[in-house]
Amino acid sequence: MKKMKLTQYNHLDDSLALHTDRYQINMAEVYWKEGIHKRKAVFEVYFRKLPFQNGYAVFAGLERVIRYLHDFCFTESDLAFLREEGYNEDYLEYLRKLRFTGTVKSMQEGELVFANEPLMRIEAPLAEAQLVETAILNIVNFQTLIATKASRIKQVAGNDSCIEFGTRRAQELDAAIWGTRAAYLAGFEATSNVRAGKMFGIPIAGTHAHSMVQAYRDEYIAFRKYAEVHQDCVFLVDTYDTLKSGVPTAIQVANELGDRIHFKGIRLDSGDLAYLSKEARRMLDEAGYTNAKIYASNDLDEHTIMNLKSQGARIDVWGVGTKLITAYDQPALGAVYKLISIEDEQGEMVDTIKISSNPEKITTPGLKKVFRIINKTNGKSEGDYIALEEEEPGKEEVLHMFHPVHTFIGKFVTGFEARELHQTIFENGELIYDLPTLQEIRDFAQRNLHLLWDEYKRTLNPAEYPVNLSRECWDNKMKRIEEIRIKVEAFMKK
Amino acid sequence: MKKMKLTQYNHLDDSLALHTDRYQINMAEVYWKEGIHKRKAVFEVYFRKLPFQNGYAVFAGLERVIRYLHDFCFTESDLAFLREEGYNEDYLEYLRKLRFTGTVKSMQEGELVFANEPLMRIEAPLAEAQLVETAILNIVNFQTLIATKASRIKQVAGNDSCIEFGTRRAQELDAAIWGTRAAYLAGFEATSNVRAGKMFGIPIAGTHAHSMVQAYRDEYIAFRKYAEVHQDCVFLVDTYDTLKSGVPTAIQVANELGDRIHFKGIRLDSGDLAYLSKEARRMLDEAGYTNAKIYASNDLDEHTIMNLKSQGARIDVWGVGTKLITAYDQPALGAVYKLISIEDEQGEMVDTIKISSNPEKITTPGLKKVFRIINKTNGKSEGDYIALEEEEPGKEEVLHMFHPVHTFIGKFVTGFEARELHQTIFENGELIYDLPTLQEIRDFAQRNLHLLWDEYKRTLNPAEYPVNLSRECWDNKMKRIEEIRIKVEAFMKK
Repeated sequence: MKKMKLTQYNHLDDSLALHTDRYQINMAEVYWKEGIHKRKAVFEVYFRKLPFQNGYAVFAGLERVIRYLHDFCFTESDLAFLREEGYNEDYLEYLRKLRFTGTVKSMQEGELVFANEPLMRIEAPLAEAQLVETAILNIVNFQTLIATKASRIKQVAGNDSCIEFGTRRAQELDAAIWGTRAAYLAGFEATSNVRAGKMFGIPIAGTHAHSMVQAYRDEYIAFRKYAEVHQDCVFLVDTYDTLKSGVPTAIQVANELGDRIHFKGIRLDSGDLAYLSKEARRMLDEAGYTNAKIYASNDLDEHTIMNLKSQGARIDVWGVGTKLITAYDQPALGAVYKLISIEDEQGEMVDTIKISSNPEKITTPGLKKVFRIINKTNGKSEGDYIALEEEEPGKEEVLHMFHPVHTFIGKFVTGFEARELHQTIFENGELIYDLPTLQEIRDFAQRNLHLLWDEYKRTLNPAEYPVNLSRECWDNKMKRIEEIRIKVEAFMKK
Repeated sequence: MKKMKLTQYNHLDDSLALHTDRYQINMAEVYWKEGIHKRKAVFEVYFRKLPFQNGYAVFAGLERVIRYLHDFCFTESDLAFLREEGYNEDYLEYLRKLRFTGTVKSMQEGELVFANEPLMRIEAPLAEAQLVETAILNIVNFQTLIATKASRIKQVAGNDSCIEFGTRRAQELDAAIWGTRAAYLAGFEATSNVRAGKMFGIPIAGTHAHSMVQAYRDEYIAFRKYAEVHQDCVFLVDTYDTLKSGVPTAIQVANELGDRIHFKGIRLDSGDLAYLSKEARRMLDEAGYTNAKIYASNDLDEHTIMNLKSQGARIDVWGVGTKLITAYDQPALGAVYKLISIEDEQGEMVDTIKISSNPEKITTPGLKKVFRIINKTNGKSEGDYIALEEEEPGKEEVLHMFHPVHTFIGKFVTGFEARELHQTIFENGELIYDLPTLQEIRDFAQRNLHLLWDEYKRTLNPAEYPVNLSRECWDNKMKRIEEIRIKVEAFMKK
């Protein structure tokens, strides 16, 4: 009886097909019953505003999305549940056979991305494209958010190492694991989460906690015992009194054990980190441990790190937990998934638009490509250029880049390379993308940062990176808005 | 090759034993090598500050923690990874056989809990108790946070229904699933996440999205098609123009289909929800649909709901997404896991303490129980009373309840019932707790709210609910602080 209760929610054939909003299942049913479920539909993933008022975002989540789409299918227990919910047998039979057969184009993980540009494009039979929306957003929103936060922190930390320490404060297990992967690809050096090390090959870090000192009820004994078992030693020195007891004891143990250990340094986890780190540095240096590093943790983020550095704190390694793994100051990225084109009754693709009284919620219709316009002279990016599928901006002599709302703001660019950012991931359901390793993604993210002027990388009030629509793309959008206006007007006159 | 890359992080025997910080594995190794890994250690889980400046928190996460502890073991792939990381073979052999054999006492899910009181108590062999810290905190922190946020929102929504809509903005997959369970147990009525419905039996809700209107490129056709397939209809009316097109079209379709459908209402997802809901209500009423409900969504939380209600918005059902599922205004709860007692060399249990220059980081030593002191006259709680294990406050005539920091603030209570809040979950590794159903947990949470005066349930500036230490518990803490002071002084004189 107890066992049954314990396992009630664990289906051996659990799948992620039901990890979606109910309305997706309902809409797919309408399409299927109407026989339009196989019409080709094109959706785009994009966000409307950069998180943290940062100047750029770091795209992440693709690998997990690939796995999700690759494995997508309704299992028997999924179908049994839908049956209980009253869906009819013919529809369930259709769902049973459903696999993802679409074509996906996407930014690569580690790519720098901006507001209002398509991050992913899903072209698939209407019902399929609809069913996968929720999970894709769930994954991309979180991982991109954390990668961006990590990149901000690295901007401030500079050459100092940053370690992800946030598991205990993460929003459940997946967030800890995939969040630390996102942090690593954006430049973090290591994580404390052992499972993330196992799954992704991320270097794992950590030595001991306060509880070890408490367990021995004596700092000296605790440090000694640790050092006798582990060669690499970073002693946590703030269990009782950092400067009066912790640091001197660490030095004493290092002195006693000499070459038998590698005294890597000390960790501070409370108190005034600026003051304590400066004093601890002085004590370590005086004892001859000039190579011993000072690790610090305790609710750090880019703001505290910048402040501590500006006060001359002598911290070498930053352990960042809560504020990173939850993206504390903005814990959600608002990426959306919008229909931009659909096959009509005659088999023609027709662009679609959504109008809203919130102007930023108006979509940009049509199949689009994103180009990064790189100045050949200095190797820096002039901005991103969103063009309709058939356009080839790389062949233009002069590119007119203008603001998509304030159209009078613009510039003419010459001597550029137009680098297309989307890669084809799936083609008609087949995975054709050669997945890079996490290390390759991390290197790619680093290289991408060099394309951006420093003005876009400032953590406070960065310059606005241009993301422009081509003239054709802009005209197409205006045309669709006008069509809707006429439609609403006609409706009102009925 | 591609397949290999795709599956690189997926071990068939994946376990959660490595879902921990590296330092836990290192400390456990020290204890094991020193032969003190089996010494009995007692840790407590508690948080130092209520989230959202709320007057209470709703405890959640226990069911997931039970499963984690019940299944705890290192698999072959876990051990292989640790071998790669350089841990030695004898230690790995010890880990291979390790199971959780401890005793766990805990608040029940749905219990109202407060700052600085033990939520869970883990008594186990030292190494085991240490290894499970990280995952327990990861689970309890998130689920308690979301349950508390949901309860706040319900305080404001009153008798209106609240539906969880946040999957696409949740921090990865687990957060969506376990977050919606937490919201439901704290009083939400339903979720849009189908998998959560399957796993937990939570009612699932949802009809259609903007994309369906876009797919048909016509609101009227879209609503008709939906209504022909689904009896229960909630039409989303803001794809083109809410009042000029959306609402009139919904009414038209309802008129046409009459009894063939159940026109449940309309949903607003953008624009000014106060104005639009009032106008829409008038239009629905004039058309005779006085029972049709108005659903609203779009970045709602307790603040926007309170404001909309105060402006007379005519909203019946609140769809709450991002702000709930990420606990947007405070996305982390800072629960910690602290050693409070440990077996010494002679086999005696000794209380332990951690001192810090951050006063709130000082721990309260000793094994403790938590009692809710209920006034027998009015059935309301006088506060919580934390006593040492052997105390029996229920047998006292008069209870002196005093503030643990400002000790001069206090009161004498008579005519009370002292209700012990902890339940025994595991006894020496055996699960003895009879897990309640989710529905039972939800009812329990509702009943618990009746124990609290309304002053503690206000969402802004609630009164501070008393959480007091017994005199013995307080004296014990002061004694340990003094012991440490003497120890540090002696160290300095060396």
